[in-house]
Amino acid sequence: MRAAIFRNGQIVVDTLPEPKPAAGQVLVKTLACGICGSDLHARQHARRMVEMSRHFPGRKPMDLARDVVFGHEFCCEILDYGAATTRRLKPGTRVCSIPGLLLPEGPQGIGYSNDNVGGYAERMLLSEALLLEVPNGLASEHAALTEPLAVGVHAVEKATIRGNEVPLVIGCGPVGLAVIAALNLKGLHPIVAADYSPARRAMAAKLGADIVVDPAQSQPYATWAEHAGMSEAEKAARPPLQAFLPALKPALIFECVGVPGILQQVFEGAARDARIVVVGVCMETDRSEPMLGIMKELNVQYVLGYTPDEFARSLRLIAEGEVDAAAMVTATVGIDGVAQAFADLANPEAHTKIIVEPWR
Amino acid sequence: MRAAIFRNGQIVVDTLPEPKPAAGQVLVKTLACGICGSDLHARQHARRMVEMSRHFPGRKPMDLARDVVFGHEFCCEILDYGAATTRRLKPGTRVCSIPGLLLPEGPQGIGYSNDNVGGYAERMLLSEALLLEVPNGLASEHAALTEPLAVGVHAVEKATIRGNEVPLVIGCGPVGLAVIAALNLKGLHPIVAADYSPARRAMAAKLGADIVVDPAQSQPYATWAEHAGMSEAEKAARPPLQAFLPALKPALIFECVGVPGILQQVFEGAARDARIVVVGVCMETDRSEPMLGIMKELNVQYVLGYTPDEFARSLRLIAEGEVDAAAMVTATVGIDGVAQAFADLANPEAHTKIIVEPWR
Repeated sequence: MRAAIFRNGQIVVDTLPEPKPAAGQVLVKTLACGICGSDLHARQHARRMVEMSRHFPGRKPMDLARDVVFGHEFCCEILDYGAATTRRLKPGTRVCSIPGLLLPEGPQGIGYSNDNVGGYAERMLLSEALLLEVPNGLASEHAALTEPLAVGVHAVEKATIRGNEVPLVIGCGPVGLAVIAALNLKGLHPIVAADYSPARRAMAAKLGADIVVDPAQSQPYATWAEHAGMSEAEKAARPPLQAFLPALKPALIFECVGVPGILQQVFEGAARDARIVVVGVCMETDRSEPMLGIMKELNVQYVLGYTPDEFARSLRLIAEGEVDAAAMVTATVGIDGVAQAFADLANPEAHTKIIVEPWR
Repeated sequence: MRAAIFRNGQIVVDTLPEPKPAAGQVLVKTLACGICGSDLHARQHARRMVEMSRHFPGRKPMDLARDVVFGHEFCCEILDYGAATTRRLKPGTRVCSIPGLLLPEGPQGIGYSNDNVGGYAERMLLSEALLLEVPNGLASEHAALTEPLAVGVHAVEKATIRGNEVPLVIGCGPVGLAVIAALNLKGLHPIVAADYSPARRAMAAKLGADIVVDPAQSQPYATWAEHAGMSEAEKAARPPLQAFLPALKPALIFECVGVPGILQQVFEGAARDARIVVVGVCMETDRSEPMLGIMKELNVQYVLGYTPDEFARSLRLIAEGEVDAAAMVTATVGIDGVAQAFADLANPEAHTKIIVEPWR
């Protein structure tokens, strides 16, 4: 079968052996697979990614001398079954799955693995136990957005919202947009969001941001503060010694950029007692001033991925039209277009989410 | 009056003008004042401290060209009153106070200020509204430990304990010891604590640590894991996909060292989903791998200081014998001994808390 392969640091198109479903597994045809920022990161920082896996004894790291097929945001069609399967869903059924395989030695990831081919290939293997049927009528390229939406749903869950916070989303790429969509579903308004790109700010507004900020024009934290003022009742309820502090509602900041230095910027801009959810994936060593965190008593919650429940809920949210997932898709390409798509995604004006359709 | 003064980066003894209580203020005689790790930090990193204050528009930064008298862990005796005071407590009454003055322009700190003399001076000024009477019979040098205990009480409050965590305290200086004492009061056992110094490990055990670790002998996080195993019931209650993860209770790590690199060490050692409370005050730029935080979904709560309620509670806890505060005091000195005490505190075997008695 054909696949867009990560080989020697590049994305190349080549032929791979046909995958054969083992016990409990299903052979599927990849209908649609989103290109994730993590894939772009992984191409650039593959060595770091491998190095990091030493902290997770259960996970088998990538061998960069061998081929890897990325792609972990997929919607597929069932083709065939391996042994020891219940075959509850008929061949032809469209399915989503968290990007993992339940193997005898434990769960292993799909997409950053030499063994488990990801969604930039014509066919792949999934674990039958993890399959979720795509609700009737939902387009495959929108079902493929389940995974990135789940990242936002999970980030907002980990934020344990109390209801009185004013959220600020830094960065409106696919991760920031998913966070905005999830915040919108929680009804936590006003949502303030910042991005340098006019196209992404427009998309942020479409997905539920109430105030969009261009950091080149105004300071996001200052704009946030303009919309985070306490009510008179809240002001009156403060202890006397706090009466001299700015009368602001609690800050809930989602860092959705993921480059070195951004957390330090958030520390500098954040209001006292802010809670910061780090959703952006920074793969490089970072520098920051702990004193800023200390003096402001900041809380930093790092997050990654989602639970199976959050994933299933995200698919339902898209299928039921609760999230305008279609708004995020800016292009679709075939296997031959993956390498160019990686390059194109560098321009935030042109693209947000590119979907790979390996059957094209 | 005489004082140990921070002048040109050194601690020198000199005479200062007698303080005069303004409206709402009380003139007090300093009976006892602890030397805090922050004072040692401040002597070394005073410029950084000043630089950091730009983030806090309300706070007046130190002018390092002028004298500063450190000392913010004090117990005093009332001598005289300024105007507009209720004089509820008689002269001669022993009192504690949070190290702040309520001034017309807002609260200002005592101890890191050119204007508000700290406890390494014979006399100082306090705000009458903040005075807490020392309960009868409590020794002044133990009442002076209210402030450092409050730091531990606050850190444990900010940790919002759920009851099933296993705590690990990294560093058993005064801050770590106060955290251990506060954890002990919460009944959250076993408490695992780590320090390279045998003297400090002994003190940690005295204040409530159940397991003390010498990091030169064994890895604190491994020792923690040995004592954090889930019960069979907890194991059985886990979702199926988590069955492959180590069966450990939630980790609650208190970082009480405060040097660059220590947070990265905690990130490396911490179990997945660990909550980390940063109580140590690191005044230098730090480097860390955000990917570790992300992959483990760590939570970092930076903390500083305490609330007035926590401060008052800490004084009661010492007075009622709930905390063996006396165990922490390893020496007392007069004003002339402050400079040497700063040097002596570098040796953790010799000293934990040195109390200054300016009247000696």
